[in-house]
Amino acid sequence: MEVLAEFGTPEQQERWLRPLLDGTIRSAFCMTEPAVASSDATNISTSITRDGDMYVINGRKWWSSGAMDPRCEVLIVMGKSSPDADRHRQQSQILVPRDTPGVHVKRGVHVFGYTDGTHGGHAEIEFTDVRVPVSNVIAGEGEGFAIAQARLGPGRIHHCMRSLGAAERALELMCRRITSRVAWGAPLADQGVIQDWIADARVRIEAARLLVLKTAWLMDTVGNKGAHTEIQSIKILVPSTTEWILDKAIQAHGGGGVSQDFPLAMMWAHNRTLRLADGPDEVHKRSLARREIRKYQ
Amino acid sequence: MEVLAEFGTPEQQERWLRPLLDGTIRSAFCMTEPAVASSDATNISTSITRDGDMYVINGRKWWSSGAMDPRCEVLIVMGKSSPDADRHRQQSQILVPRDTPGVHVKRGVHVFGYTDGTHGGHAEIEFTDVRVPVSNVIAGEGEGFAIAQARLGPGRIHHCMRSLGAAERALELMCRRITSRVAWGAPLADQGVIQDWIADARVRIEAARLLVLKTAWLMDTVGNKGAHTEIQSIKILVPSTTEWILDKAIQAHGGGGVSQDFPLAMMWAHNRTLRLADGPDEVHKRSLARREIRKYQ
Amino acid sequence: MEVLAEFGTPEQQERWLRPLLDGTIRSAFCMTEPAVASSDATNISTSITRDGDMYVINGRKWWSSGAMDPRCEVLIVMGKSSPDADRHRQQSQILVPRDTPGVHVKRGVHVFGYTDGTHGGHAEIEFTDVRVPVSNVIAGEGEGFAIAQARLGPGRIHHCMRSLGAAERALELMCRRITSRVAWGAPLADQGVIQDWIADARVRIEAARLLVLKTAWLMDTVGNKGAHTEIQSIKILVPSTTEWILDKAIQAHGGGGVSQDFPLAMMWAHNRTLRLADGPDEVHKRSLARREIRKYQ
Amino acid sequence: MEVLAEFGTPEQQERWLRPLLDGTIRSAFCMTEPAVASSDATNISTSITRDGDMYVINGRKWWSSGAMDPRCEVLIVMGKSSPDADRHRQQSQILVPRDTPGVHVKRGVHVFGYTDGTHGGHAEIEFTDVRVPVSNVIAGEGEGFAIAQARLGPGRIHHCMRSLGAAERALELMCRRITSRVAWGAPLADQGVIQDWIADARVRIEAARLLVLKTAWLMDTVGNKGAHTEIQSIKILVPSTTEWILDKAIQAHGGGGVSQDFPLAMMWAHNRTLRLADGPDEVHKRSLARREIRKYQ
Repeated sequence: MEVLAEFGTPEQQERWLRPLLDGTIRSAFCMTEPAVASSDATNISTSITRDGDMYVINGRKWWSSGAMDPRCEVLIVMGKSSPDADRHRQQSQILVPRDTPGVHVKRGVHVFGYTDGTHGGHAEIEFTDVRVPVSNVIAGEGEGFAIAQARLGPGRIHHCMRSLGAAERALELMCRRITSRVAWGAPLADQGVIQDWIADARVRIEAARLLVLKTAWLMDTVGNKGAHTEIQSIKILVPSTTEWILDKAIQAHGGGGVSQDFPLAMMWAHNRTLRLADGPDEVHKRSLARREIRKYQ
Repeated sequence: MEVLAEFGTPEQQERWLRPLLDGTIRSAFCMTEPAVASSDATNISTSITRDGDMYVINGRKWWSSGAMDPRCEVLIVMGKSSPDADRHRQQSQILVPRDTPGVHVKRGVHVFGYTDGTHGGHAEIEFTDVRVPVSNVIAGEGEGFAIAQARLGPGRIHHCMRSLGAAERALELMCRRITSRVAWGAPLADQGVIQDWIADARVRIEAARLLVLKTAWLMDTVGNKGAHTEIQSIKILVPSTTEWILDKAIQAHGGGGVSQDFPLAMMWAHNRTLRLADGPDEVHKRSLARREIRKYQ
Repeated sequence: MEVLAEFGTPEQQERWLRPLLDGTIRSAFCMTEPAVASSDATNISTSITRDGDMYVINGRKWWSSGAMDPRCEVLIVMGKSSPDADRHRQQSQILVPRDTPGVHVKRGVHVFGYTDGTHGGHAEIEFTDVRVPVSNVIAGEGEGFAIAQARLGPGRIHHCMRSLGAAERALELMCRRITSRVAWGAPLADQGVIQDWIADARVRIEAARLLVLKTAWLMDTVGNKGAHTEIQSIKILVPSTTEWILDKAIQAHGGGGVSQDFPLAMMWAHNRTLRLADGPDEVHKRSLARREIRKYQ
Repeated sequence: MEVLAEFGTPEQQERWLRPLLDGTIRSAFCMTEPAVASSDATNISTSITRDGDMYVINGRKWWSSGAMDPRCEVLIVMGKSSPDADRHRQQSQILVPRDTPGVHVKRGVHVFGYTDGTHGGHAEIEFTDVRVPVSNVIAGEGEGFAIAQARLGPGRIHHCMRSLGAAERALELMCRRITSRVAWGAPLADQGVIQDWIADARVRIEAARLLVLKTAWLMDTVGNKGAHTEIQSIKILVPSTTEWILDKAIQAHGGGGVSQDFPLAMMWAHNRTLRLADGPDEVHKRSLARREIRKYQ
């Protein structure tokens, strides 16, 4: 929706954005590919080839969240339209109705055993000679990379905010559990090791939250570009912080922690994907470090 | 099977051990309870009450692995038979045919999103006024804790051996992956951070393996009791080592790592339970530390 | 000085505070004792016994920073004046001129190999039947613990601010070093592992700094008491964060890092004491955790 | 001594090895240079230039341990004799009597404030047009790198054995301390967090020791070359393991831990150098990882 709102033509918005906002249809975003290291977006190899008034799409995508929802009617597909252009001008994004011939939703991809919702998981989709009108391209040929960048900033802070919420909830669940369980004659809450976890959890949540809040404030005041380093910082800091807290909360819950009786295991699995989604931590750390080093070169 | 082989009467062995060894039936072990911190075995609260020639069992168990297998015909249940006896003499273990009235297999407990096998997970079982003959008790009333201890040593080293195997496999999968994927113009294998993971993985596997081998040798030469500290040591060291390696292997696989396309996520989820199974790490560390400190008291 | 400014009588301020502010004399604070775990302030065992118009002081102190400075003329000594009073009312603080008979500055205590300044280190001082007038007590008998608490809040945030400064400086030194050194044909700055350190350093500094700033703002707006949890949080978070960064900066400097050619080793040694000064991390974590847990009890 | 015993000519052994073995003189090894990243041995830039029957040496070395001892009479200097030869054939090692004109021992290099012995530290030495006979070269021109490699294997395992000894001693000191100190009404030994440290310390020492023992056995049975991976593994594993244990022991000792009253701070400082000596951990990890990855390429 955000992509269409910001980059769509009036026609595209009329046809797709309005029903999306009305909640009558769903969309999915098709970027990551199973066959290449997609953290380097220039690796993306789905082809978008001009043929008269049509584009022909061929390739394979996965982690297309929402595409398995029966209400999903449109896909935004990122692919290589200009293989010989400058590195960041090779990709385009294009609207593909899900019922277009050649679109084959093959299966759901799972996350640690979870299908992430009732529709069977994040879709793997094959595109075989899929033809859509030229007018379906978003913001023009070669704009794919720029749109992706514009979309990722807000996406990342949403991920981090939700992740922090999970951390806060895990801490509460842990506190509730340890005050209600007894071992060796005393509540688990009296165990020094568990107290140590709780202190670390609280301190780490507070520090991470302030960095998220500062990032949000920067996005509001100087824009996504001005907040680039901070967005990267929270993407690096928050999911791993939350992962550590969820792990301790699971441990404090014993067997219940890994089971379906508490939300911790599912929260953990979902949160674990955030160290990979929108680029693995290592890519963001490398990029942030290079900017830091550049000050002294 | 090991419990029956070591502690069963000839009649018990004839009736249950033989078909188990023949593979015609399956058994399950019912120890952990959802309502109490079972790492403190004296917390176990399922009651086993004498009534003439019968014992009457009431309580709730979970993580009874294998009990959902349709071939499972017998349960070994641990419960409190002598609440007023000395702390380590309160528990007994008793054989309960699964079709005994009052035995209710309620559901499967999941591990992260996995059901761990085709039968729906580790069973949660309710026992309501379940009656079995007195002759079904194993090794005598009050022996439950001692049997559990005897059984856990070998069980723990098996867990550790399998866990190390998973670590070794994860390291291989990681190496294969990074030599076949390219990002920013070079194979992932050229990334310094990934090389760092691989070196740490190899070094930690080698050190952990030697400690497991020494433990096995001690169990063979001086027995489970003489190897007590070492069994505890590998229980502490191995699962967390393997967890770290699996995490890095998942990270190197990108989205594939958390999905069903590689065995890593499932291996991770199973391995995560080992930091809880047979007592959480923290319990073993406390016990080992106290023995270490005692040398100086 | 802060103690006298806040709690001193006009006479005490006239005699000691004025020359301290003029810079003509120095003072030292004598709290920690070598013979007891001083993180539990009730352990402090130096005795302050009333004898007519005088107090008689007996005991041994160390880590009395500044007492070896030849300009040091007065000591503030904390000791047990009312052993039978309520736990937090047993201690008093009292002014002791350094040239009082019975005051014996025994030696300097080192920090790793450093003497911390030109005067030989933090003093160890023995008090043997040291007699001072009753009027030298600060804020009244039994107020020692309360004064100590009042003094520690501001002291702790100063420590954390300086520690963060050290972290920032270490990061700069590391960046300068790696851009100017070459190994295997490329500057160290190209090594992925070092980039990973730099990214982590930057992210952790930013998050920690925001928490320090929030703490300072709370101290200004709601007072030291209202900022209690935050003061404890930064005391837990900052020194260990800085320690990690200093360690990586040292590593990037090779042999130079541990030597006197760069300030890193000395900064590291000083920063290491902050995980102990004013109570070890573990004490603060326990206290913070208990307040967190109390919400759910 | 080991270099001369293995690679020296009979004349070199007669003149230098015999008095070294008799203990009447001392030697020092001059390899590391302050101006270059010496972990890449090809960076070493001290020049050794042939001039008739003499070699002329120019350059600057540091961390020449033992060179400040007044009994030190001979230096083994590594330098570049054939800058145009193959990468690993450029360096030679040569014997230089310490009283040769042009040898200037400038100062001692410290380790975290310690001078490491009574002679003022590890020497920094300047060589200005130092002339020694051609016969002083060890094992021939271009053999410097090979000798260094041969010497480093045994040196590294010695470092690791001593480091493990320090870890074992730190664990004992920690146990003794916590059983003799009381806070909040109980010995520190009852604190769960400290017990956790002790368990981890014991487990990590045991695993590391087995890897050192296996390495020693491999060196005895298949030689230093056959034990290459294991030597690297313990160099990576042991110093950082010991560092962690020393840190916890210091923490358990409070202010005493960083002072001269216990050996812990000095042991820590010395042990910290081992993560840099003979090449920083990162270099060894990269090398080990590449061999691991090569299996799959």
